[in-house]
Amino acid sequence: MDYTPALMTDMYEYTMLDATLRDGAANRKCVFEVFTRRLPEGRRYGVVAGTGRILDMLEDFHLSDEDLRFLADRHIVSRETVKWLENFRFTGTIRGYREGEMFFPNSPILQVEGTFGECTLLETLILSVLNYDSAVASAASRMVTAAKDRPCMDMGGRRTNEAAAVAAARASAVGGFQGTANLMAARRYGLKAIGTAAHCFTLVHDSERDAFASQIASLGRNTTLLVDTYNIEEAVRTAVEVAGPELGGVRIDSGDLAALAQRVRNQLDALGATETTITVTNDLDEYAIAALQTAPVDSYGVGTMLVTGSGAPTCAMVYKLTERENSDGVMQPVAKKSKDKATVPGRKLAYRSYEYNLADCEHVVSGSEEKLAAFRPQDGWKDLLVDYVRDGEIDHTYQGHDAIMAAHEHRAKALAELPITAQSLMKGEPVIPTETTVL
Amino acid sequence: MDYTPALMTDMYEYTMLDATLRDGAANRKCVFEVFTRRLPEGRRYGVVAGTGRILDMLEDFHLSDEDLRFLADRHIVSRETVKWLENFRFTGTIRGYREGEMFFPNSPILQVEGTFGECTLLETLILSVLNYDSAVASAASRMVTAAKDRPCMDMGGRRTNEAAAVAAARASAVGGFQGTANLMAARRYGLKAIGTAAHCFTLVHDSERDAFASQIASLGRNTTLLVDTYNIEEAVRTAVEVAGPELGGVRIDSGDLAALAQRVRNQLDALGATETTITVTNDLDEYAIAALQTAPVDSYGVGTMLVTGSGAPTCAMVYKLTERENSDGVMQPVAKKSKDKATVPGRKLAYRSYEYNLADCEHVVSGSEEKLAAFRPQDGWKDLLVDYVRDGEIDHTYQGHDAIMAAHEHRAKALAELPITAQSLMKGEPVIPTETTVL
Repeated sequence: MDYTPALMTDMYEYTMLDATLRDGAANRKCVFEVFTRRLPEGRRYGVVAGTGRILDMLEDFHLSDEDLRFLADRHIVSRETVKWLENFRFTGTIRGYREGEMFFPNSPILQVEGTFGECTLLETLILSVLNYDSAVASAASRMVTAAKDRPCMDMGGRRTNEAAAVAAARASAVGGFQGTANLMAARRYGLKAIGTAAHCFTLVHDSERDAFASQIASLGRNTTLLVDTYNIEEAVRTAVEVAGPELGGVRIDSGDLAALAQRVRNQLDALGATETTITVTNDLDEYAIAALQTAPVDSYGVGTMLVTGSGAPTCAMVYKLTERENSDGVMQPVAKKSKDKATVPGRKLAYRSYEYNLADCEHVVSGSEEKLAAFRPQDGWKDLLVDYVRDGEIDHTYQGHDAIMAAHEHRAKALAELPITAQSLMKGEPVIPTETTVL
Repeated sequence: MDYTPALMTDMYEYTMLDATLRDGAANRKCVFEVFTRRLPEGRRYGVVAGTGRILDMLEDFHLSDEDLRFLADRHIVSRETVKWLENFRFTGTIRGYREGEMFFPNSPILQVEGTFGECTLLETLILSVLNYDSAVASAASRMVTAAKDRPCMDMGGRRTNEAAAVAAARASAVGGFQGTANLMAARRYGLKAIGTAAHCFTLVHDSERDAFASQIASLGRNTTLLVDTYNIEEAVRTAVEVAGPELGGVRIDSGDLAALAQRVRNQLDALGATETTITVTNDLDEYAIAALQTAPVDSYGVGTMLVTGSGAPTCAMVYKLTERENSDGVMQPVAKKSKDKATVPGRKLAYRSYEYNLADCEHVVSGSEEKLAAFRPQDGWKDLLVDYVRDGEIDHTYQGHDAIMAAHEHRAKALAELPITAQSLMKGEPVIPTETTVL
């Protein structure tokens, strides 16, 4: 399969490029900002994810001959624009929130600075990545909170687009998950891969005992056996008979999980398999996980609700021009005035302030470039923007496995610094307010 | 970017392969079936989409040396299994519902027949594709119904994963949409691409008039101008001044669309631009579209709610082993008995019956292979299963642009053959029942 990031893009980015190359506006310096006007209903915070993937794709943001021919043949752009695109390389600057950082309405999650032409081409891809990945990471974070110290694992690949599944696995790691069933994600991002067997494995064998024996012969006694294909009590008995009390774990994928987990725990303990763990995996979301707090469960496998953002399958992030050069070459804040979609003009700075070591406010500061340059945050305000790309040079520390692990750690730390309400599953307002100041 | 379909897969498919290659069960002939136990709440029908993409990826379902090294290094499979995988090629048979076909609970949407080993490896990918693509096509179909004769266009790419966006554009075409903003989908599937300019295009110019003039210079008078960046009334006046009454169209992306469309229509007519069309694009779903029925709107651009399945971002399709060879080489229906997830054993036939030219029942028939071979449907029952792959040979008529257009036509026809209730947006039961008969 051939995926060209540069064409994973709405047509109007190219028609705007074409028109502005013609009239010169393509060369105007611009600042675009990604933000959301609201969190999903009742959510207290969001978790940024996907920025590292944007950097990966920025490196591949070139058009092949076939792509260029397509743009020309369909008359999407002129011959001159095709020429311009042949050597396209983003030469601007990108800064933004770290992956794993909490975000709120109007947080300037990403800022893209460059010419109008180059910034415009990136819009669709940036939004696709941030909107989906952050939706998954935000849901993951709530699930991980509900699970307390018990690990959550991504098993959702089959319930989302096959490539989205790879991104979801990565985003779930940012959001606090500890492993994924998805092999592509495990390979590409160095994530821990998990999984043993499905019901069909039991069914293809002549008996459950044959299936368990086969799995143990292949994966060892430390494996996790799926015990709900026929009768759970019988399956647990068979499992311990075949594997011995050193059986690694059992998995339950149906029924009343709290009741079943308790019964299976009792049975395992009575059989001497006191160290055998119990994994549950039946249509879990953060609420179901919270309801299992007192059940003897050791880990959670989450599918559908993880990869679909637990009711919020996309964030409402937008990519808006907030500042641009005018015809005299002076940078000028701009904003549209559309009813219900108005924007705050000007590039933003972003800080978080703390009281008693807990966050109490997100500060978004905008103004002319001179005023921003002169602005000094108050003591203790944390600067939320990091530099991802400077004049076209990508900072590679934000890509790859280590960056994901850093984001995973950062999420836990940043969440712990929010008021405790952030960890509530009750619907409510964003846990801290965002104060926007125009200098 | 490198996407290996064979690794866009849950790890347990490989560990099951490994264990069954060791004990011989990998070679047992099997039938797996894809179906859903329920439609999303209140939906009257679903629309199948994605099968052509499965065929595309089946052609690429090979493991690279790097993939094989990964499986070996992580000890996911044994050395013998790596050898087996080196030459992997699916040699089985796949049949199922056509793309664009209506489906209901328990419809056998896809049947995969082959050895346990080869069928197992396909599970995750098949479900990812069908679950997402069908969710989008099902939502699209409701929107198209609500829009009646007005065209619906996909503009949702930025609100879903960047590769999912390409699949969503394709699925929306199956579901009845007439064009997409997504260039990758337009290139790969030969779809009509649409789009002209965003708010940033107006903002980057010194005035709205400059922006409109630039767009017309580049795209001609027949282009669609976005008129809600500042003041809509002024923008429409400027638009007609700059383009003349032969202006192609205007787009409104915010505010109360019904009221605005009426005012803009009046203004355009008064300015003599009676042929200028009005496109609206502000967070539409099927209900919003239905509410605009009497507004003078010419086409709809749909984003978020299309690519997230309008409240149902995934189908609940599963892939279940329903029949397999036993140790004597005889095919045997099998089924798990898990509480709340039990399945009907045996391969299925599927028919739709009609009364007065309208569908009245979905008939799902299962039983031993001999009984199925002897089964004769009643007069007028339509056989719903087509052959996609026979003994590893893909029927290419189900791939590519023509297949999508055929599916687009088929959806319209199949929907028209359902009781009219199918076109209602009111919540309710599936519009026809599914009768399962075990012979």
